[in-house]
Amino acid sequence: VSGSEFTLDFDRPARIGFAEAVYAAGKTPQQLAAILDAAAERGGGLLVTRLDEDKFLLLPERLRVRIDYDAASRTAFSGEPQPITGEASAAVLTAGTSDLPVAREVVRTLRYHGQASALMADIGVAGLWRLMRRLDEIRRHAVIIIAAGMDAALPSVVAGLIAAPVIAVPTSVGYGVAAGGRAALDALLASCAPGITVVNIDNGYGAACAALRLLRMLNADPSRHSPG
Amino acid sequence: VSGSEFTLDFDRPARIGFAEAVYAAGKTPQQLAAILDAAAERGGGLLVTRLDEDKFLLLPERLRVRIDYDAASRTAFSGEPQPITGEASAAVLTAGTSDLPVAREVVRTLRYHGQASALMADIGVAGLWRLMRRLDEIRRHAVIIIAAGMDAALPSVVAGLIAAPVIAVPTSVGYGVAAGGRAALDALLASCAPGITVVNIDNGYGAACAALRLLRMLNADPSRHSPG
Amino acid sequence: VSGSEFTLDFDRPARIGFAEAVYAAGKTPQQLAAILDAAAERGGGLLVTRLDEDKFLLLPERLRVRIDYDAASRTAFSGEPQPITGEASAAVLTAGTSDLPVAREVVRTLRYHGQASALMADIGVAGLWRLMRRLDEIRRHAVIIIAAGMDAALPSVVAGLIAAPVIAVPTSVGYGVAAGGRAALDALLASCAPGITVVNIDNGYGAACAALRLLRMLNADPSRHSPG
Amino acid sequence: VSGSEFTLDFDRPARIGFAEAVYAAGKTPQQLAAILDAAAERGGGLLVTRLDEDKFLLLPERLRVRIDYDAASRTAFSGEPQPITGEASAAVLTAGTSDLPVAREVVRTLRYHGQASALMADIGVAGLWRLMRRLDEIRRHAVIIIAAGMDAALPSVVAGLIAAPVIAVPTSVGYGVAAGGRAALDALLASCAPGITVVNIDNGYGAACAALRLLRMLNADPSRHSPG
Amino acid sequence: VSGSEFTLDFDRPARIGFAEAVYAAGKTPQQLAAILDAAAERGGGLLVTRLDEDKFLLLPERLRVRIDYDAASRTAFSGEPQPITGEASAAVLTAGTSDLPVAREVVRTLRYHGQASALMADIGVAGLWRLMRRLDEIRRHAVIIIAAGMDAALPSVVAGLIAAPVIAVPTSVGYGVAAGGRAALDALLASCAPGITVVNIDNGYGAACAALRLLRMLNADPSRHSPG
Amino acid sequence: VSGSEFTLDFDRPARIGFAEAVYAAGKTPQQLAAILDAAAERGGGLLVTRLDEDKFLLLPERLRVRIDYDAASRTAFSGEPQPITGEASAAVLTAGTSDLPVAREVVRTLRYHGQASALMADIGVAGLWRLMRRLDEIRRHAVIIIAAGMDAALPSVVAGLIAAPVIAVPTSVGYGVAAGGRAALDALLASCAPGITVVNIDNGYGAACAALRLLRMLNADPSRHSPG
Amino acid sequence: VSGSEFTLDFDRPARIGFAEAVYAAGKTPQQLAAILDAAAERGGGLLVTRLDEDKFLLLPERLRVRIDYDAASRTAFSGEPQPITGEASAAVLTAGTSDLPVAREVVRTLRYHGQASALMADIGVAGLWRLMRRLDEIRRHAVIIIAAGMDAALPSVVAGLIAAPVIAVPTSVGYGVAAGGRAALDALLASCAPGITVVNIDNGYGAACAALRLLRMLNADPSRHSPG
Amino acid sequence: VSGSEFTLDFDRPARIGFAEAVYAAGKTPQQLAAILDAAAERGGGLLVTRLDEDKFLLLPERLRVRIDYDAASRTAFSGEPQPITGEASAAVLTAGTSDLPVAREVVRTLRYHGQASALMADIGVAGLWRLMRRLDEIRRHAVIIIAAGMDAALPSVVAGLIAAPVIAVPTSVGYGVAAGGRAALDALLASCAPGITVVNIDNGYGAACAALRLLRMLNADPSRHSPG
Repeated sequence: VSGSEFTLDFDRPARIGFAEAVYAAGKTPQQLAAILDAAAERGGGLLVTRLDEDKFLLLPERLRVRIDYDAASRTAFSGEPQPITGEASAAVLTAGTSDLPVAREVVRTLRYHGQASALMADIGVAGLWRLMRRLDEIRRHAVIIIAAGMDAALPSVVAGLIAAPVIAVPTSVGYGVAAGGRAALDALLASCAPGITVVNIDNGYGAACAALRLLRMLNADPSRHSPG
Repeated sequence: VSGSEFTLDFDRPARIGFAEAVYAAGKTPQQLAAILDAAAERGGGLLVTRLDEDKFLLLPERLRVRIDYDAASRTAFSGEPQPITGEASAAVLTAGTSDLPVAREVVRTLRYHGQASALMADIGVAGLWRLMRRLDEIRRHAVIIIAAGMDAALPSVVAGLIAAPVIAVPTSVGYGVAAGGRAALDALLASCAPGITVVNIDNGYGAACAALRLLRMLNADPSRHSPG
Repeated sequence: VSGSEFTLDFDRPARIGFAEAVYAAGKTPQQLAAILDAAAERGGGLLVTRLDEDKFLLLPERLRVRIDYDAASRTAFSGEPQPITGEASAAVLTAGTSDLPVAREVVRTLRYHGQASALMADIGVAGLWRLMRRLDEIRRHAVIIIAAGMDAALPSVVAGLIAAPVIAVPTSVGYGVAAGGRAALDALLASCAPGITVVNIDNGYGAACAALRLLRMLNADPSRHSPG
Repeated sequence: VSGSEFTLDFDRPARIGFAEAVYAAGKTPQQLAAILDAAAERGGGLLVTRLDEDKFLLLPERLRVRIDYDAASRTAFSGEPQPITGEASAAVLTAGTSDLPVAREVVRTLRYHGQASALMADIGVAGLWRLMRRLDEIRRHAVIIIAAGMDAALPSVVAGLIAAPVIAVPTSVGYGVAAGGRAALDALLASCAPGITVVNIDNGYGAACAALRLLRMLNADPSRHSPG
Repeated sequence: VSGSEFTLDFDRPARIGFAEAVYAAGKTPQQLAAILDAAAERGGGLLVTRLDEDKFLLLPERLRVRIDYDAASRTAFSGEPQPITGEASAAVLTAGTSDLPVAREVVRTLRYHGQASALMADIGVAGLWRLMRRLDEIRRHAVIIIAAGMDAALPSVVAGLIAAPVIAVPTSVGYGVAAGGRAALDALLASCAPGITVVNIDNGYGAACAALRLLRMLNADPSRHSPG
Repeated sequence: VSGSEFTLDFDRPARIGFAEAVYAAGKTPQQLAAILDAAAERGGGLLVTRLDEDKFLLLPERLRVRIDYDAASRTAFSGEPQPITGEASAAVLTAGTSDLPVAREVVRTLRYHGQASALMADIGVAGLWRLMRRLDEIRRHAVIIIAAGMDAALPSVVAGLIAAPVIAVPTSVGYGVAAGGRAALDALLASCAPGITVVNIDNGYGAACAALRLLRMLNADPSRHSPG
Repeated sequence: VSGSEFTLDFDRPARIGFAEAVYAAGKTPQQLAAILDAAAERGGGLLVTRLDEDKFLLLPERLRVRIDYDAASRTAFSGEPQPITGEASAAVLTAGTSDLPVAREVVRTLRYHGQASALMADIGVAGLWRLMRRLDEIRRHAVIIIAAGMDAALPSVVAGLIAAPVIAVPTSVGYGVAAGGRAALDALLASCAPGITVVNIDNGYGAACAALRLLRMLNADPSRHSPG
Repeated sequence: VSGSEFTLDFDRPARIGFAEAVYAAGKTPQQLAAILDAAAERGGGLLVTRLDEDKFLLLPERLRVRIDYDAASRTAFSGEPQPITGEASAAVLTAGTSDLPVAREVVRTLRYHGQASALMADIGVAGLWRLMRRLDEIRRHAVIIIAAGMDAALPSVVAGLIAAPVIAVPTSVGYGVAAGGRAALDALLASCAPGITVVNIDNGYGAACAALRLLRMLNADPSRHSPG
């Protein structure tokens, strides 16, 4: 693998505050190894997403031993994650158990960038009491991220009850019209509850980045954002 | 208009218990007038659906004066509706005010077939208390019909709280991904709440017919349905 | 697997009369085992759907020996199914042999909830006599559930001949425009026969639940449903 | 309008036996007039399709008086249609009254090319007896053309009962998932009855041309088609 | 496998002239074996389509040895095919080599029903001379069947040059927008050449059946088809 | 219009901080007038969206004179907007001039809720310098909202250059594949820039609400959001 | 209209050689007038596309008299077009007469930029001789632009016969599956002829710009393009 | 494999200047071997595309040893590629590393036809500086080919900065709405930058052929292309 196959965005952390991240799905183990080596040489860290366990196991052992891999979320940390900072934090909800891999990608991406979060799984609206009994707990967080597939009704109910920003991640969980996640995505975009925002299907990484943009605002010196 | 342009299904009431019905959308005023005359000659009634006010006003006056037309639901009764019978009845819910025309088509179709119903409008889940305070009232009915557009989350919540049959009608209310009703339809089909059934977008007539099939079972002599 | 990965809806049977059910498709064998154990501890039963034989075989033996697994319908009963009750019952029809797995999911779900049914396979309208000779048999049931793929024309013909509620399940059987079941779904939603209701593609479980909502009404004390 | 805006296919009748035809929908009245004049100069006839009444009325009077215009089918004959010939002929069926404009385009196109046909309207399968009582009449024709919208179930039933070629025309009649005719088209393509062929939505002209290809084979000297 | 899993249409050959046919794709080897046995007991033949080689090899040896299996077309003949009859015959064209499996399903289905055909492969319009040099050969046949994927331009050109009936089979050959065959299907339906008819994507069996309906008309006593 | 046609969510401001809002597109002028009267009686304000000028002019004069209507954004304020508060504020960008109506709906919704914003129009990436020269100005805001149709490339470039939260609104501007806004929506969801969130096509109201959720966090006492 | 509603890309001609162009479809007459005035003040020209005659007539007279408007192509020239230069030139073909408005947008855009072209209309492949007799004429041009709707088969045949660059513009001409132009677009993208490139549906302006990029290369000093 | 399964287009190089090419995806190893042998017999070369390594390894060794196979681009050269000629040349850009296989198909196809190119990988607009620092290098080429998936924003920015022809290849890289490449394709077709042309998703071969049509014009004697 020659270096000309990738162009790392070394400038990204300084520019917009995100660690360099690598989407592993379309890359060969050889390309991944070369990218991990290049990042290590430079002395920087790297967040790898969509890294299937099979592909992880094809990486050279010298790389495998020094990265923190999590099979459930298919993420890997190369280099130390940032230390946990900030007072404001995120709640990560799932409508069903099957939405957990996406929710875990959210949690891991937040963690790599130094952000704590609380995961509450399987509280979809078909059994409304499961959500209701946890409302106070949810309300204590500065941003709510919700992974939901099928009809994705949970964010509509949550956003009608809670004032914080709500970022919804449609998941590809389901079959028939739900397969692939388009039904969930469209239901979320069409939601009657005001102010839900949405990211791509199964895009836990993107939802976490959106939350990070927001949490950094909250944790930063507020004078920075005043116009004029 | 020659008689060969339509073939009335005179046998339908005896066969499956529905009045002959005419879908006005694809027909000329001339064709509708000929059909109404043919039905009158035979001495039977007719339910007309999707009859826009403009088209209604193009019918000959002799027909206009003797049919019961309702512009909001775009339905017309030719001949007397059946008298109200039966103990079991239907609740007709809407998620928003914009779903009312479809809900009214449900109410009018039920009424033409002798069935009472209760209409509860604009109780979508973005303001959950609007539904919650009416749950007991909804529970008193034998079948629940719900018209909902956009993300159509209301039926999922209702079907998780109430044991009766739930028939959902997606509506074409909305814009962007919601336009045309496909997002609402898919969300309903993908619902996590067990046992919701669905009809075509904006098909208030079909939802009412499905409810009628069921209400007649309930109101009939139960011995009729025992196998063997 | 920590308990926080799922939130069983223990209240569901009391609330809407359905056993807790688990959709196995998006879950790992470890998650399924944890859920089965949790349900057993609580002393309650569980209906598992979409459980492929491969995944079933990965469950711990202690679980495999005490659940009733059916590979053709991919369903498992954990705990005793309810005893058969009620006079009214269901006919389950298929248009072709390839629709059988879906029809069997219907039959098994009904059975777990104590409801008998009669299965009639491969009677699609391309050979109309196959349906016609069984019409009287079909008419003896209180609700008709039909699994049909490809052009899904069978429910239209049945609903034109029989007065009982008709619940149609489009199946993903077929190729070309039929692949995935969207053509069947849309044909069913667009059916000219009045009062057909539809569930998601291949959703035998949902069709059975819709039938259960209805059969319980029929089998229950009718005074419960009278308004006012 | 300069002559360079169109290139009439004068050679078409000799080559494949169809009159030159003009699709009026995308053309201005000026362009249509120029085309009709050019055809008249040459001494040949012309079949115009998709000619809305509004556009017809914008043609110069000298043209309007000498063409045979039919508003219901939106077709116009310029020049004499061919005399009726041949023994074999076509049956043209519609599932509903709303499918009539398409069926009439079939009848008019056949007539312009010298072919008789019999039109049977509104015999869809939701009232099966309407079809059954006309089966013998249908069987007397060499080719069956069926215009059907919504779920388009009629051709499946007909093709299962009759041995002749069946050409189906999906129509754009309907609303919700049926709007535009894609559901009807897909149902027809997915039909379980063997040997149905399909043309574009609302394409009565194309269905008639397909029938003409076939009827000319039947009416021609059979020795022409033997291989070798 | 109990006999109730299938309902053979024994009456089909007498009714519409086609042998009973079985679509193997959605069936288990056990179901196929039971169907083949049932047909054999009755003394009749059976055409099997979409029978992958893997599934064929899972049939019991006693069945494998007495059926004529062709892997390229995935078809099997159980029982003797009908003897070749009739003067009129079919030309089967493909646009590319990759369309051959579909074209072979056409050829085999025709053969099973006693109909000869001539296969001409890989003559798509990107190299127009490949078609032009075979036009006379094509013209000698009574019906033209064309399998074409991607942009499916071949049938448009052929139907503009040849007067015989043209039946087009879109194939799922291709990638990107061509994947699955929808682009080819839509191009065929939208063709400017008059009178092309279309069947489902990859439906070689259906195209052959459509040709058989037509060829039987041509080969039969013509007096049969005269109306009145 | 009876009061039962709508159910105002009076509790919404207290619950989640948004004024009651009414989507005018699916409502009759009579329904709108009744809603405006009901809100006025209660003494509260109301934000009306999607109110076409034609429909506005059909409202009774007594209502027209006391609401603040803006035709370009199709919004109306009933009652006084909230006073401008807070230090953090929003930048509202458009890729083209045609995206302005959506951007204005954003600006007006923010204003009604007491939030200032700066509008920068027509700075799409096809002329990159138009964006570059305004980067510093954009950076001074706490949240960036971008309305963009067609290929919607602007948010990808902005989110790669600026650390603040970016909320993208796809617009229905364009023709061909861009018509309706699905291409813009999908491009935004698929964006390579990390952390863009998206709302429904043309949903300026929703984007503003999402920004409000966030701005209120920033302007509020930060101790509120720290987890227990 | 304030100047902040648009940001003219004055730098564009110098940067990439195209005149500033304005897409009129999404703009009000007021916005267009302001843009035309701003361009005139600056002393530069402007190409307006998608300017319907109705909207043109709503412009102030002082603007109408000094712009060169062409209703058929819906284009307007503000300021003098560039003088015709260069030896290489373009052939603009249409498959049918209905494709002419798109082809004229190509011709006008080329002309405004100083490029001659030859228009050849209505030479689609259903009558192949119409194309064949003009092949030599077509071959004399350096680039071929083809506007084609429906099945869009013409570019496949042309690109198989001619070596020059072929730019295809799918048009929205047609009905049923052809409506909107997606079938034509997909057929062009899937074409078997090597090296066809495609622009958006009805995008005559874009096709002309693509041709201009190429023609300028040909007309320029060739040494400019040699690497290194 | 009989010779009748393929019809090589031997005339193609002379006619339009492209080597005969074979699309391997839909062909068996046996068919490929027969085609390679037939080409070798004739003494000509052959470019094979979409040849997966698994299928390559199933070719007979005598063929494997004499063809130049490249696994990354899935291309094979049979026979010598043409010698590098011409002054003008191509730049091949990719937005991400995952787009490399498509870009390599471009490079290999150009090379087989005697055309040099420069590959610049992973310079998408989310990190704009990666593109900006290479602009001068890109400008030195006569044609720019860009492979980009997901939101495919890179070509819009490049075409706004560079005057040369830009050919964009959408890739199927991505997940959710990006899966399959339709979002990238539609974004490219909808691009606001004037004069981008597009080929099918992942069609590196086609993009190279389009570039070759253009480069040959540039490298040829210019007098050839002057009209008249």
